[in-house]
Amino acid sequence: MSDFSKKRLYFDNNATTAPSSYAISAVEKALKQWGNPSSTHQNASQAKALIWSARESLSAFLNCHPLEIIFTSGASESNNQAIKALFQDLSSSKRTELMISSVEHPSVFNQGLFLEKQGFKVHKIPVSREGFLDEDFLEKHLTEKTLLVSIMGANNETGLLFPIKKWIKKAHEKGALFHSDMVQILGKQKIDLKDLDIDLASFSGHKFYSVQGCGLLFCKKGVTLNSLIHGGAQERNRRAGTENLTGISAFGAVAKKGESFLEKSQKIQALRNDMEKRLLSALDDIEIINGSAPRLGNTSCLLIKGVIGETLMMSLDLKGIAISVGSACSSGKIESNSALRALGLSFQEAGNCIRISLGVENTKEEVDYLVETFISSVKRLRNLD
Amino acid sequence: MSDFSKKRLYFDNNATTAPSSYAISAVEKALKQWGNPSSTHQNASQAKALIWSARESLSAFLNCHPLEIIFTSGASESNNQAIKALFQDLSSSKRTELMISSVEHPSVFNQGLFLEKQGFKVHKIPVSREGFLDEDFLEKHLTEKTLLVSIMGANNETGLLFPIKKWIKKAHEKGALFHSDMVQILGKQKIDLKDLDIDLASFSGHKFYSVQGCGLLFCKKGVTLNSLIHGGAQERNRRAGTENLTGISAFGAVAKKGESFLEKSQKIQALRNDMEKRLLSALDDIEIINGSAPRLGNTSCLLIKGVIGETLMMSLDLKGIAISVGSACSSGKIESNSALRALGLSFQEAGNCIRISLGVENTKEEVDYLVETFISSVKRLRNLD
Repeated sequence: MSDFSKKRLYFDNNATTAPSSYAISAVEKALKQWGNPSSTHQNASQAKALIWSARESLSAFLNCHPLEIIFTSGASESNNQAIKALFQDLSSSKRTELMISSVEHPSVFNQGLFLEKQGFKVHKIPVSREGFLDEDFLEKHLTEKTLLVSIMGANNETGLLFPIKKWIKKAHEKGALFHSDMVQILGKQKIDLKDLDIDLASFSGHKFYSVQGCGLLFCKKGVTLNSLIHGGAQERNRRAGTENLTGISAFGAVAKKGESFLEKSQKIQALRNDMEKRLLSALDDIEIINGSAPRLGNTSCLLIKGVIGETLMMSLDLKGIAISVGSACSSGKIESNSALRALGLSFQEAGNCIRISLGVENTKEEVDYLVETFISSVKRLRNLD
Repeated sequence: MSDFSKKRLYFDNNATTAPSSYAISAVEKALKQWGNPSSTHQNASQAKALIWSARESLSAFLNCHPLEIIFTSGASESNNQAIKALFQDLSSSKRTELMISSVEHPSVFNQGLFLEKQGFKVHKIPVSREGFLDEDFLEKHLTEKTLLVSIMGANNETGLLFPIKKWIKKAHEKGALFHSDMVQILGKQKIDLKDLDIDLASFSGHKFYSVQGCGLLFCKKGVTLNSLIHGGAQERNRRAGTENLTGISAFGAVAKKGESFLEKSQKIQALRNDMEKRLLSALDDIEIINGSAPRLGNTSCLLIKGVIGETLMMSLDLKGIAISVGSACSSGKIESNSALRALGLSFQEAGNCIRISLGVENTKEEVDYLVETFISSVKRLRNLD
């Protein structure tokens, strides 16, 4: 076994990924080729060229038109523009209802709570502990009142994949729009936006080996989008604010190499499967949450009876291994994870869960070290009781 | 005179500034010290430390508390959170009116139009061609119905400075909140937020020698702020979304050297004054817009009779000099500048205006070359008619 005593092993790639060499080079280039893309002189042209190049790379990787991409500050903003901004001006629609899954990321779920407070009807589709959407509920509440259905492509906690293609079609049959937070799928599975025929989709750079502070919102041609941020005419009047040149350049540079990330993700899936097999055979009373449902290949959400997830996470952290408990989206606060609770886990069960999310740089040796350390840590923690 | 034939001379610093060496080093460091600050392991801690350090540098430079700073994707977002998000939930207030100046940046002004469409009363304070706010108008419309007054600290087109301290006090006497888009002042004049006693103020990194895609909103302790972007609990529940680690680090690094930028700005003012003097003595029929009002030291908005600003800008661009026409905020479109029109300039006069905005790196030699090239270009263009 390799000596990992001096190197940190990172298994929290669903929270953020290490900036790849492609991203770093692109940032360095953009720091030299700076300019305000909205100006009209040559300093602007060089900046504009970087942004167009990124737009082309991303649209090629996602299979959409370059102008269907709106650059944002990240997926939280993208989600807010897709949902909240849509509901802020209903003058062109008599539809007033939102439908979301009950396991959405807070940047979708908390908008649901906000819109409810504003008097809108928000239907939250139940998801079973096994990971299946309540399709009867969906069918029943998808009506001519539905303005938007928003169902994530893959869940950040468990990797659960939802059958969005089927429901995009059904939403359209009812005249509703369909949005998906597709942050966790990018770079892990092939995405074909044209084939999906989706209206709106959110993506983030920093969960895809780029940098933090830049994401995008795909908006299908013909779909009217309201502004979340009003001001200048950037992004064809859909998102005001001077473009994040370094962030956009980096995002595009990673997309340009997108296929190689997809290939590596295949290998990661084999490592993850092997890891789960070994953990389950070595330890009793472990459950893979959503383990029998279609899942992302990199994610493992494990319920370890008798072990506080937070304690296990800290124990591994001291040994140089980063994993996570709950969502990484609540500033240092370890709160009961709402998505896990929505899956039907008790408060205590959610507290016994940890998430391991592999990235393309993880090696077999690293996973071996993780498995060994994980097993010994769990045994030790269980014996403390 | 130096040979500038191979170097571009940049005089469009109100549109964006070149990233300084401090910003570049900070970005490079953050690319290595990556992590999601919301996670709870050591990769998160190192990222969190960078953000805290930036928060401290910025709060020291602005004289406020570190937790009064909310990092955003830029000033457009800051302005939208300060204004639009405030008006989206009026449950705690009977006040429903907004007051803005008529020469605000589009990220404030266009929100006014949006809010008007939503049925709110928006008072737009006239500004005279000479650059003075209509204080009678302000006095008259500042009432117990006023929820918010938003007046920019300095105008991006002409450098015009507004007496906000006086009106912050008056707004408070009427129980209204006061916001200011202070983007253009940062690094050019000393800012003391505590002394101003302002409630909300917007700033941008990329107009302050940092990078694009990161700004901040100052929110005075005790002021309730609504979310523009709902989701995770970042920025103490006031702004969701994973923090822009590189952008925030760079912004903080520049603020740490903020005093040196203020010193250099003094020298820039002398260069600007000398430049204006020479242009006015060499060319007839030139007017400095807002020239007799209090102005930023780096900005010159010149109305050159008989010359289309756009043509002059392009002519100088071909000679390696970047200046601007109108606002740089309308993606490649040269539209009649609304702020200049609001000052009372005719459509044609606005089209005859160019803006020169100096930055701390501009030298006397560069300004000499600009002056000479500018004079010969104007003479040539006037003779073409």
